[in-house]
Amino acid sequence: MDWREVVAQALAEDIGPGDITTETTVPASLRACGVFLAKAAGVLSGLDVAAECFRQLDPACDFQARLAEGDEFAPGTTLAVVTGSARALLTAERTALNFLQRLCGTATLTRAYVDRVAGTKARIVDTRKTTPGLRRLQKTAVRAGGGHNHRFALYDGVLLKDNHLALAGGVAAAVAAARAGAPHTLRVEVEVTTLPQLQEAIAAGADVALLDNMDLATLRQAVQLAAGRILLEASGGVNLDTVSAIAATGVDLISVGALTHSAPAVDISLEIEPL
Amino acid sequence: MDWREVVAQALAEDIGPGDITTETTVPASLRACGVFLAKAAGVLSGLDVAAECFRQLDPACDFQARLAEGDEFAPGTTLAVVTGSARALLTAERTALNFLQRLCGTATLTRAYVDRVAGTKARIVDTRKTTPGLRRLQKTAVRAGGGHNHRFALYDGVLLKDNHLALAGGVAAAVAAARAGAPHTLRVEVEVTTLPQLQEAIAAGADVALLDNMDLATLRQAVQLAAGRILLEASGGVNLDTVSAIAATGVDLISVGALTHSAPAVDISLEIEPL
Amino acid sequence: MDWREVVAQALAEDIGPGDITTETTVPASLRACGVFLAKAAGVLSGLDVAAECFRQLDPACDFQARLAEGDEFAPGTTLAVVTGSARALLTAERTALNFLQRLCGTATLTRAYVDRVAGTKARIVDTRKTTPGLRRLQKTAVRAGGGHNHRFALYDGVLLKDNHLALAGGVAAAVAAARAGAPHTLRVEVEVTTLPQLQEAIAAGADVALLDNMDLATLRQAVQLAAGRILLEASGGVNLDTVSAIAATGVDLISVGALTHSAPAVDISLEIEPL
Amino acid sequence: MDWREVVAQALAEDIGPGDITTETTVPASLRACGVFLAKAAGVLSGLDVAAECFRQLDPACDFQARLAEGDEFAPGTTLAVVTGSARALLTAERTALNFLQRLCGTATLTRAYVDRVAGTKARIVDTRKTTPGLRRLQKTAVRAGGGHNHRFALYDGVLLKDNHLALAGGVAAAVAAARAGAPHTLRVEVEVTTLPQLQEAIAAGADVALLDNMDLATLRQAVQLAAGRILLEASGGVNLDTVSAIAATGVDLISVGALTHSAPAVDISLEIEPL
Amino acid sequence: MDWREVVAQALAEDIGPGDITTETTVPASLRACGVFLAKAAGVLSGLDVAAECFRQLDPACDFQARLAEGDEFAPGTTLAVVTGSARALLTAERTALNFLQRLCGTATLTRAYVDRVAGTKARIVDTRKTTPGLRRLQKTAVRAGGGHNHRFALYDGVLLKDNHLALAGGVAAAVAAARAGAPHTLRVEVEVTTLPQLQEAIAAGADVALLDNMDLATLRQAVQLAAGRILLEASGGVNLDTVSAIAATGVDLISVGALTHSAPAVDISLEIEPL
Amino acid sequence: MDWREVVAQALAEDIGPGDITTETTVPASLRACGVFLAKAAGVLSGLDVAAECFRQLDPACDFQARLAEGDEFAPGTTLAVVTGSARALLTAERTALNFLQRLCGTATLTRAYVDRVAGTKARIVDTRKTTPGLRRLQKTAVRAGGGHNHRFALYDGVLLKDNHLALAGGVAAAVAAARAGAPHTLRVEVEVTTLPQLQEAIAAGADVALLDNMDLATLRQAVQLAAGRILLEASGGVNLDTVSAIAATGVDLISVGALTHSAPAVDISLEIEPL
Repeated sequence: MDWREVVAQALAEDIGPGDITTETTVPASLRACGVFLAKAAGVLSGLDVAAECFRQLDPACDFQARLAEGDEFAPGTTLAVVTGSARALLTAERTALNFLQRLCGTATLTRAYVDRVAGTKARIVDTRKTTPGLRRLQKTAVRAGGGHNHRFALYDGVLLKDNHLALAGGVAAAVAAARAGAPHTLRVEVEVTTLPQLQEAIAAGADVALLDNMDLATLRQAVQLAAGRILLEASGGVNLDTVSAIAATGVDLISVGALTHSAPAVDISLEIEPL
Repeated sequence: MDWREVVAQALAEDIGPGDITTETTVPASLRACGVFLAKAAGVLSGLDVAAECFRQLDPACDFQARLAEGDEFAPGTTLAVVTGSARALLTAERTALNFLQRLCGTATLTRAYVDRVAGTKARIVDTRKTTPGLRRLQKTAVRAGGGHNHRFALYDGVLLKDNHLALAGGVAAAVAAARAGAPHTLRVEVEVTTLPQLQEAIAAGADVALLDNMDLATLRQAVQLAAGRILLEASGGVNLDTVSAIAATGVDLISVGALTHSAPAVDISLEIEPL
Repeated sequence: MDWREVVAQALAEDIGPGDITTETTVPASLRACGVFLAKAAGVLSGLDVAAECFRQLDPACDFQARLAEGDEFAPGTTLAVVTGSARALLTAERTALNFLQRLCGTATLTRAYVDRVAGTKARIVDTRKTTPGLRRLQKTAVRAGGGHNHRFALYDGVLLKDNHLALAGGVAAAVAAARAGAPHTLRVEVEVTTLPQLQEAIAAGADVALLDNMDLATLRQAVQLAAGRILLEASGGVNLDTVSAIAATGVDLISVGALTHSAPAVDISLEIEPL
Repeated sequence: MDWREVVAQALAEDIGPGDITTETTVPASLRACGVFLAKAAGVLSGLDVAAECFRQLDPACDFQARLAEGDEFAPGTTLAVVTGSARALLTAERTALNFLQRLCGTATLTRAYVDRVAGTKARIVDTRKTTPGLRRLQKTAVRAGGGHNHRFALYDGVLLKDNHLALAGGVAAAVAAARAGAPHTLRVEVEVTTLPQLQEAIAAGADVALLDNMDLATLRQAVQLAAGRILLEASGGVNLDTVSAIAATGVDLISVGALTHSAPAVDISLEIEPL
Repeated sequence: MDWREVVAQALAEDIGPGDITTETTVPASLRACGVFLAKAAGVLSGLDVAAECFRQLDPACDFQARLAEGDEFAPGTTLAVVTGSARALLTAERTALNFLQRLCGTATLTRAYVDRVAGTKARIVDTRKTTPGLRRLQKTAVRAGGGHNHRFALYDGVLLKDNHLALAGGVAAAVAAARAGAPHTLRVEVEVTTLPQLQEAIAAGADVALLDNMDLATLRQAVQLAAGRILLEASGGVNLDTVSAIAATGVDLISVGALTHSAPAVDISLEIEPL
Repeated sequence: MDWREVVAQALAEDIGPGDITTETTVPASLRACGVFLAKAAGVLSGLDVAAECFRQLDPACDFQARLAEGDEFAPGTTLAVVTGSARALLTAERTALNFLQRLCGTATLTRAYVDRVAGTKARIVDTRKTTPGLRRLQKTAVRAGGGHNHRFALYDGVLLKDNHLALAGGVAAAVAAARAGAPHTLRVEVEVTTLPQLQEAIAAGADVALLDNMDLATLRQAVQLAAGRILLEASGGVNLDTVSAIAATGVDLISVGALTHSAPAVDISLEIEPL
């Protein structure tokens, strides 16, 4: 679903047959100006989504972004200014903020992780632990924060988890089945929990290994064992305190579910003034 | 939009043209059993949503809830057991958990607030600071947690905020305009920041006053001033540390945006076994 | 559903794969002008809906309204003039008229009721007896006619009817249950058929009482009994002959299903001339 | 759009995020029985649509029709009985009645016209003056009443109206253009207002002539002139007082816009009892 | 479904959450120019569909058609030039070509049939053997090629096939039933396989006879037998080698399923250059 | 879009407001049996799609497949038998056949290619040259024929074509940009037209090279040059006469656009008998 349709659905959810308060108290002809003001520090993502909220209600409104996707901002920063129908501004306000605060939240948390692994080769990548309906927007926010995207969904990457391995008859059989059946444009990634399993994955010709909940020592051994023959993704037990050490082990990728399931919203307000 | 359609869209977002991993490694005829296991304590909400995820992929699957909406659970509790096509279980797993963990998160946080105001007359109510697309599900989770719902959206309640008051010519004019234009089935609520404004709202015949960011002393004065002539909703600066004292002032309602914008997900896993 | 989508569906219903007559006989490049002409007196509503019909087929067409929503018009009045592609005018004509004639019908009938209660405090309000799919447009027409809207739907008002009362255990229990479960932004209305029931509703703290099919004498007693403690809505047996007397009893609201289920269409034609 | 989708949209329009009254006062497990009772005489149409309203909310409900589509009924007749979830019955009641009362209205009015032309060869046919979104259901109701359908929409019939004739260069040119461009599966019908125009239409090889607003004498002359070479449709000035005489002129078809734009709703109620 | 929606669905099918290749390698601000170049001879159809593909991704793009619908072109001909966002051009390229090549294929094959029956009165008509979802576009291509359309679908023409005849009790009964139940705006066509059946169809008053798989001699006899009292459609065994002789028998219509189910795509490329 | 929705749209396209022929001539209660009969040899694909056509019109119908997806069949073979409402069978017949004949066509052509490369390691793969709206079904048919799928769409594979290379600054820069921006779950494929370009692609670390229109000698040199360091896909000039020799060069993949853009439909009929 196109992200503009996601915006349309969110507006429909909030407006339904009408914004009774605004329609009964604010004249249709009145114009106003709204200023998006950061109340906390953060990294910007989703200003285009916020703009779309207003444009769907007032196609003639003017939306001026003051910062770009991925920019960092301090408290008190003006992020954007929107001018248009006063009714449209009041009616779209909450939906625009609901998107913007959450997306900046993800970008901001991602940046924190990315900063902590600076100087290593590790990519911070997201997961499929996203909010239903908002995956594309959240994945964009991860990139705004400097992170990278893992597969978008079940269709653009092969990831053989423990259940697949069990049901398919082990690592070698599962990798072979995936290779045989999947498009050649996709890599094959396998979840492993031990070094022997990693060895097996390498032997089976997997492209990537997801190292599930390994401690630092084991991660370091995995890097040595792999010796560049397979990409290594560390997963599990990753937080802002542990991520630097994990990156220092030499893994290629570190996946962080929290980027999309637990990023606190960034406090942003919209100050509306009549024109 | 019907909540079953929300589920359908979430599945489509994740599955698209197909779950390559599962389709290439798990036989179509294989059956499996999945156990939803709580990894942390919480309050249950959304098991029917999780069930729907599996049913849309395997209409013949069997889903047995072990707890009811609103029940509290300890870590290690089995919440539900689903039996059906192994492919369906693997493919729907992530989407089901994405819903369930978030909804239990909201129910759990709500319960914490509700417990802290026990013995007072204050209702814990939610806000419109919900995740775009998930409002209905989140509001259900608030009720599961023992909270109450504020208006669902812009169409089922009149809430005159500072901007409306300014644009409509003050409290008296705004209340009059809303009364004249809104259906008689809706109450009129007015945001006030001072006691004189509250006095004005009462005089204008408003039904509810939203007391914006008032300190405890002022809240107490507001309760005295209102003397039951108007419902009072405290808003702003509410957290688990402050909510008891706020409730003790005698206000009728306490609205908490965090219930829907900042509730941490509850850790729940799905353990799948072949049959 | 957005009203523009209602228009789109109506056009799709009539056009399907194409307007064979127009496509085979009218050149694509031809332009024309159409005049909306009232053939009968009425009150205007829905000109924007008619305009949208043409705009969806010819975004560049020019639509000039000559009267405003809610204006009264005499037979022979030009309501609007549309200029654009001759094909678009011919193809959209019937759909535009189907909307306009019905919406003017509702506005016109509403005005007749409103005029008859002038000088009393009674509001003429609509009901949920609307045409499936057209509720929002019909409720707008009611306002154009000078009427007020009752609740829009099942979600923005509590109305306890006889069945709810029976199933919930009587007036007091039903009001209590609704108060406990419904958002505080909604009033609670109760249907009563006798004065003792009205007394019970007042005692239970209901906000509004729907007086079902009471005769004038009983209505007058109800007004006296209520003494301003509860809003009173008269319902049943309301027509243009009886409405004045009902209003004179002092009730606050009079609901009229006929506004949306039985308003005769206003005769309006579209005269098309080539340019 | 499938008629089941029309029902789904109508229910969504009325229910939105929920039926607050019913959900807060009626237990989810309660079952009830509802009886559709005619309060006036009429002809039945749309019972399947009413049934669908309940089935979409309670797939397990039982709906027993007591009469068949097209049957006549007297006041007091039980039309159908539905048994199922009490909540589903209460929530779907209004939507089911909104459909049923209107569709019976169209069937009943159609029957009145059909009865008045009994013994002649004239078909009573409908027009495109239908309620936006409900055309298919209304056209079914016309058939239930004993009438026939004119073209369903712009795509399944060629009807050259005065505007088409003017823009295409007259009757002969317009008929030739339509014959050349339209599928051979469609007849070509031409609107004429005078006998010379009728003569022209016959000469041009049209299949049907719409005789626009001709008086009885002219209609009789048209029938003589046509002598079976072309079908004749009388249109304009048709009402229950005039239709018999019009039919007696010998025309083949009489189109009546009122069947779908002005049929009064038939009064039908749903009596609900707990089980 | 509107053809623009068909384009939107086709783009969604190909783009989903994003064109990874283009987004990661081509700057968003880059502009480019694309030239549609015929690699083979053909007849043009669908350039507006191709244009729509680009416009949906870049509403500001400029699309210049060099030929008109129905024009013949030689290899090497520039069909159109599109200028706009380089990303939009690259992303929409395949979808635009998928439409254009197929539609030109149908137009080209139709023209070949039409050319072979020049000088006879026979119309080349299409069938319902179209590609699911693309019927309207394919039928437009048939007209671009000089062919005519048979009924669009099941709703705009009556065609009694052998199964209908068998189930309805023979030709006379079936024609009578269709006449009685179908709108008078539709002709009645009957499939016949023998001359006696044709005789029966004429006697029953059918408007068109579909002559199923008759050899040339029988076709000629059918034409003689019909003597202009019924339209004759030859069907079955029609190919480019046989169509001239079939047309020479004097039939009115020749239906060719191959126009829409077997027309080879015309080779057309899009040459993109940065600006 | 779910494939069941593709079926629903195809049925809606053909049925619209109704199958006039069947509804007026075949009783609603009549039941019938239909036999899918192959009129030519082929490979089966799409029987589940055909079944779905009938099930959407008659959920209670019985559909018995006699062969499985991918099975070869000779002329005269019964592929499936469907039993149900006679109306449903007649109305869905054409849509079911339109799907089935095309999908068997793709499966059959794919099998011919696959058979010709037997004994080599070359995979026959499809392209994005699919019919708009039918990609998923066509790609399933390719697998039924024994072929493999290339990327499904623009989002599940990186394929750097000449335009991307030019706009991104050459092979090395383009590969680096794609690696940096794309999920690590995707391989990077590069189109090359010369051996030096292939050398460059290998050096840049590409995973797959698309060898565009190379002759057999060059393909052989490419295989030698690659020496297993990169997958090789031959593309261009592939037909049933050339594919064996191309496979014999040692390439890994051979992509064939004809599988989805030019596969002739397989002749299959549905013989319907009343029960």
